[in-house]
Amino acid sequence: MIKVSIVGSTGYAGQELLRLLARHKEVEIKHLVSRSYVGQPYREIYGNYQDIIEDTCVDNDLNRIAEDSDLIFFALPHGLASKQVNSDLLNKVKVIDLGADYRLHDLNIYTQWYESEHGSPDLLPEAVYGLPELHKDAIATSKLVANPGCYTTCSILSLMPLVVNKLIDPESIIIDAKSGVTGAGRSLSVDQLYCEVNENVKAYKLASHRHTPEIEQELSLGYGKGIQLSFTPHLIPMNRGILATCYASLTKEITEESLYQIYRQFYNEAPFVRIREKDLPQTRYVKGSNYCDIGLRKDPRTGRVIVIGALDNLLKGAAGQAVQNMNLMYNLKEEEGLDLIPPMPI
Amino acid sequence: MIKVSIVGSTGYAGQELLRLLARHKEVEIKHLVSRSYVGQPYREIYGNYQDIIEDTCVDNDLNRIAEDSDLIFFALPHGLASKQVNSDLLNKVKVIDLGADYRLHDLNIYTQWYESEHGSPDLLPEAVYGLPELHKDAIATSKLVANPGCYTTCSILSLMPLVVNKLIDPESIIIDAKSGVTGAGRSLSVDQLYCEVNENVKAYKLASHRHTPEIEQELSLGYGKGIQLSFTPHLIPMNRGILATCYASLTKEITEESLYQIYRQFYNEAPFVRIREKDLPQTRYVKGSNYCDIGLRKDPRTGRVIVIGALDNLLKGAAGQAVQNMNLMYNLKEEEGLDLIPPMPI
Amino acid sequence: MIKVSIVGSTGYAGQELLRLLARHKEVEIKHLVSRSYVGQPYREIYGNYQDIIEDTCVDNDLNRIAEDSDLIFFALPHGLASKQVNSDLLNKVKVIDLGADYRLHDLNIYTQWYESEHGSPDLLPEAVYGLPELHKDAIATSKLVANPGCYTTCSILSLMPLVVNKLIDPESIIIDAKSGVTGAGRSLSVDQLYCEVNENVKAYKLASHRHTPEIEQELSLGYGKGIQLSFTPHLIPMNRGILATCYASLTKEITEESLYQIYRQFYNEAPFVRIREKDLPQTRYVKGSNYCDIGLRKDPRTGRVIVIGALDNLLKGAAGQAVQNMNLMYNLKEEEGLDLIPPMPI
Amino acid sequence: MIKVSIVGSTGYAGQELLRLLARHKEVEIKHLVSRSYVGQPYREIYGNYQDIIEDTCVDNDLNRIAEDSDLIFFALPHGLASKQVNSDLLNKVKVIDLGADYRLHDLNIYTQWYESEHGSPDLLPEAVYGLPELHKDAIATSKLVANPGCYTTCSILSLMPLVVNKLIDPESIIIDAKSGVTGAGRSLSVDQLYCEVNENVKAYKLASHRHTPEIEQELSLGYGKGIQLSFTPHLIPMNRGILATCYASLTKEITEESLYQIYRQFYNEAPFVRIREKDLPQTRYVKGSNYCDIGLRKDPRTGRVIVIGALDNLLKGAAGQAVQNMNLMYNLKEEEGLDLIPPMPI
Repeated sequence: MIKVSIVGSTGYAGQELLRLLARHKEVEIKHLVSRSYVGQPYREIYGNYQDIIEDTCVDNDLNRIAEDSDLIFFALPHGLASKQVNSDLLNKVKVIDLGADYRLHDLNIYTQWYESEHGSPDLLPEAVYGLPELHKDAIATSKLVANPGCYTTCSILSLMPLVVNKLIDPESIIIDAKSGVTGAGRSLSVDQLYCEVNENVKAYKLASHRHTPEIEQELSLGYGKGIQLSFTPHLIPMNRGILATCYASLTKEITEESLYQIYRQFYNEAPFVRIREKDLPQTRYVKGSNYCDIGLRKDPRTGRVIVIGALDNLLKGAAGQAVQNMNLMYNLKEEEGLDLIPPMPI
Repeated sequence: MIKVSIVGSTGYAGQELLRLLARHKEVEIKHLVSRSYVGQPYREIYGNYQDIIEDTCVDNDLNRIAEDSDLIFFALPHGLASKQVNSDLLNKVKVIDLGADYRLHDLNIYTQWYESEHGSPDLLPEAVYGLPELHKDAIATSKLVANPGCYTTCSILSLMPLVVNKLIDPESIIIDAKSGVTGAGRSLSVDQLYCEVNENVKAYKLASHRHTPEIEQELSLGYGKGIQLSFTPHLIPMNRGILATCYASLTKEITEESLYQIYRQFYNEAPFVRIREKDLPQTRYVKGSNYCDIGLRKDPRTGRVIVIGALDNLLKGAAGQAVQNMNLMYNLKEEEGLDLIPPMPI
Repeated sequence: MIKVSIVGSTGYAGQELLRLLARHKEVEIKHLVSRSYVGQPYREIYGNYQDIIEDTCVDNDLNRIAEDSDLIFFALPHGLASKQVNSDLLNKVKVIDLGADYRLHDLNIYTQWYESEHGSPDLLPEAVYGLPELHKDAIATSKLVANPGCYTTCSILSLMPLVVNKLIDPESIIIDAKSGVTGAGRSLSVDQLYCEVNENVKAYKLASHRHTPEIEQELSLGYGKGIQLSFTPHLIPMNRGILATCYASLTKEITEESLYQIYRQFYNEAPFVRIREKDLPQTRYVKGSNYCDIGLRKDPRTGRVIVIGALDNLLKGAAGQAVQNMNLMYNLKEEEGLDLIPPMPI
Repeated sequence: MIKVSIVGSTGYAGQELLRLLARHKEVEIKHLVSRSYVGQPYREIYGNYQDIIEDTCVDNDLNRIAEDSDLIFFALPHGLASKQVNSDLLNKVKVIDLGADYRLHDLNIYTQWYESEHGSPDLLPEAVYGLPELHKDAIATSKLVANPGCYTTCSILSLMPLVVNKLIDPESIIIDAKSGVTGAGRSLSVDQLYCEVNENVKAYKLASHRHTPEIEQELSLGYGKGIQLSFTPHLIPMNRGILATCYASLTKEITEESLYQIYRQFYNEAPFVRIREKDLPQTRYVKGSNYCDIGLRKDPRTGRVIVIGALDNLLKGAAGQAVQNMNLMYNLKEEEGLDLIPPMPI
């Protein structure tokens, strides 16, 4: 049994992680850390856990936690994990960070987009970007895995086969993404009140969202040279789900069917990527599961390809992917504990 | 392995049943029957099943289906199952009917509330009302189980401890129930269009909803004489969930804590009933699970007790309860395949 | 032109009031008071007002405000208005209080339910309960009008014809009410976050909601002796609307049609009460208007009558009713500025 | 008084038109035509109209209707109006068509995108494209006005200042649009059921939506030569509202502030276009009003400008714009009957 603890266990991502780990056959949960709720029974914070989880939230005493844990998940706002993780800790436990601190390889880019100092830049070289469809082997042997952002996972998986095969002009990439509200977390702000979100659509952080450099980093690695793209997130009145509508100009004549073949081959061994052809991705088809669905259409009039990706931001976009990474790190079956059929309608 | 088939597999309840059965360790799915979609791949009707279910829908040829099935689930609008089930069929297979045809023991009451002739009244005596918390033993040995309605399960479980213990005036019972929209099924009507349901609440079928006699039948059995009550359903803009707010006048002086003790004892061996004390039931606490949550408050000013029950209408109110019944009929662990933690927020 | 100011102009009710007053032909808006946003342009707080309202929020300097105002609306959480209103102020201006401070005639009941001291108990005798359908004449000559609560207006209007005509047992009254989320105001709490409210129904404040004594006060006045009743509010995932489902036992034999005639006659001169017979009230039929719709059904089996009332909590339940009261106080047509057709779907 | 009739009065757009016209000071409503509901009181089809509209729906007898009408609005699915409108009719009445039949000047493009024969191609030359911000004078003198589509109005208004001023590469235009569900009308299909739309986002009609050529026609006229662009509509779980996120590559160095000045000047005399700078458009800011809000951001990294437009699809995207056109055709104030402050939250 892998002994795991969750730091930041009372946010939405931390909570979803607990739900998955509590039913994972190879996992024993040791500590639920939450600074805001120290000493409070977890089931009182999330009423769904009544009669299921009897644990009480504990404070962030990492030395003690590391003693009886094999693996610590961090699910914190950016900037916090990198102040707590260090070489000593990594000598005792493995770490999967669901936050942003170890995702960007280039410290300057981190500093520029996050406008704050990094807490442990020395660890950046050994951190692995935890997107299993791209970096499975490196994840398997890593002690520090940076779990990708939700928008990021959806965008990268949607575009990578085109980028790797140099089928599109990298300067033409536009990603217009739509997200449910759990993506914003559980923090208090007027903007997150029910009546401010319901019956509304808005774009936010135009040309400045922090997932942008993360998408660019991975696509640039795939393409072989630097890519800059447009990324626009939107907030949609629903609990979960991300839909990324990706536009790019094709650089060669190719049929839609050939594009589909390239995608199928690229994700041939990826158990959580489903290629949809007849019926394009919708968020409800993946909600409650670890799938990322991808489909595309070619527009002969404009010479563009439009790729649609969809995933559940709390699962494949956060907690599900973290468990997938854990499975790889412990040499378990990649799908262990993630064998979820998307419920519908839910 | 239990070989099962689903008749009416493309309605919301049938579909949810498939989702549970597809991950049930002791079950092999044989046929997905759907008259409307004969010959069509199931995954094209419900896109969530892509790469998961490869079956194609078949027609309603019960003779053929009974040949290689041990158990047939019927998930059809009322009046249809009783025309298809007969003694011959029951000699070959067991049946769990998620519809209304075998729930009422009294044929006259069926005829009066459903305004139609019953298709196989001879089977009524052997049908067992499939509410495991009340009739576990009878279910275990039955060949024909009538799965209760969604409103019904929630209402009966909420009130039965008070009724059995004669703590309330049976003439004072009022049940004000609120349901998500999947309760109405997937049939086409203007009333079910998104824009007609969204941002709206309405009551419907006042003093005439067909779940009323079903609730009365079971509570009357519990009380020992006939009970008539008021039941008012409401439609709420959400996908899933039923909340029943039940009112009754207490007939003796008793503390709230004593009432809770009576409930805890009554459901002592019921794995899917959770008694909530501090934090009353909400539908989100049970959504996506087979739980029925119950809580109560005593109102000293009016001498009433108010009991709140909550469940997921497609799970404990339909497909989950059907699987629970199947587990009992095949001597499996009651929770087999139903070990679901309610996800939140979803 | 009536010169008006709004204290508490940036809550949902205050904001809705501004919307109505800005298009009212007989009104000139003088001051928008908001402690939280002093000095900030109103259009920045509520983006819908861009190019419409150029005013900036001002602080709560009532002396100054009273100088150039004829009428001040207070739209504050309970307990605040009564600390600011006094005889001096009422010598200068008229006051309509959308809060709870002047609604209850009995100071003891206020103290008991609101658990706080009243700021100006000396004014209670001259305050008029601002439900125009009951107290039109008193409102017309009052200087201090207490605008009723949203649940209250809906409940009282739904039940009063039965109560006044002594057609029901007053001890049998149960009100099960469902409200949209604007009813809870714009204050920050985790419970009001989108993902905590969406796809959920819950009851709250069982047997303890503060609108209870207000309903009892008015119904008791109508009946001629004290009434105690059960009132249970529920939170529904939608922006606006209240539906009250009211239950009571009939004390005499009477047909449903006769009950309707009694309602029609009772509200014969009430321009904002619509009696629905064929199609019962739904919140969408009144959303965005000042109507309160009422319909009923008799249940011969249980001897009960079930009355359904519906209104828009921000209009007939708050700002609309306040304007209706203002119209009466200034001898204008009751419908002035309230001639709104409910949009649908919205 | 202008005597008007509405053909297709029971669709969502027709119904919204009725709501506006019923409160328009210069309008008298003569006939509400609805083939599906002939002889039925309008208030029974839309319960919000109880005690407001007493009319009964009539059949589509245009000769009779034209006799006592000055103006007929058509709000029908595409292909129907052009079979009913002809020169004879236009000699008797003016026509505003809210459908698609007269929007495209080029018959071939109509035939190609709508895959059906046009019912009255002879009238195309005299039809005026009813976007008041572009064609005010032509509308004022026209007898046949083609009211633009909802996506179209939002997209054209968002991009036209850039196009006319040749600030962007016309081949780089991508419009990613999000729409509420009323945009799909009130027709029965499984796809429009509440539970299929709620908690979901999807793209549809990729590279093939029929509003595309309409947008291209108007932008091409503005640019002076043919433009082809990418347009992708998405369905969002909300009743009303369209948000268009428009991307284009800037062709010259220009500041964001200069871009704003160009927009302000372009819409200087357009009472329903609001330019938002600090706070970008959101659909809730315009819902329930005739405004189209526009804002933009420049992305120096990619050299793109991103323009966001928002409107209420049933108002500025349909019925509101139709009334605006009527006002122009009858020399009334452009805002007459449209002086609506967007309510919030609604």
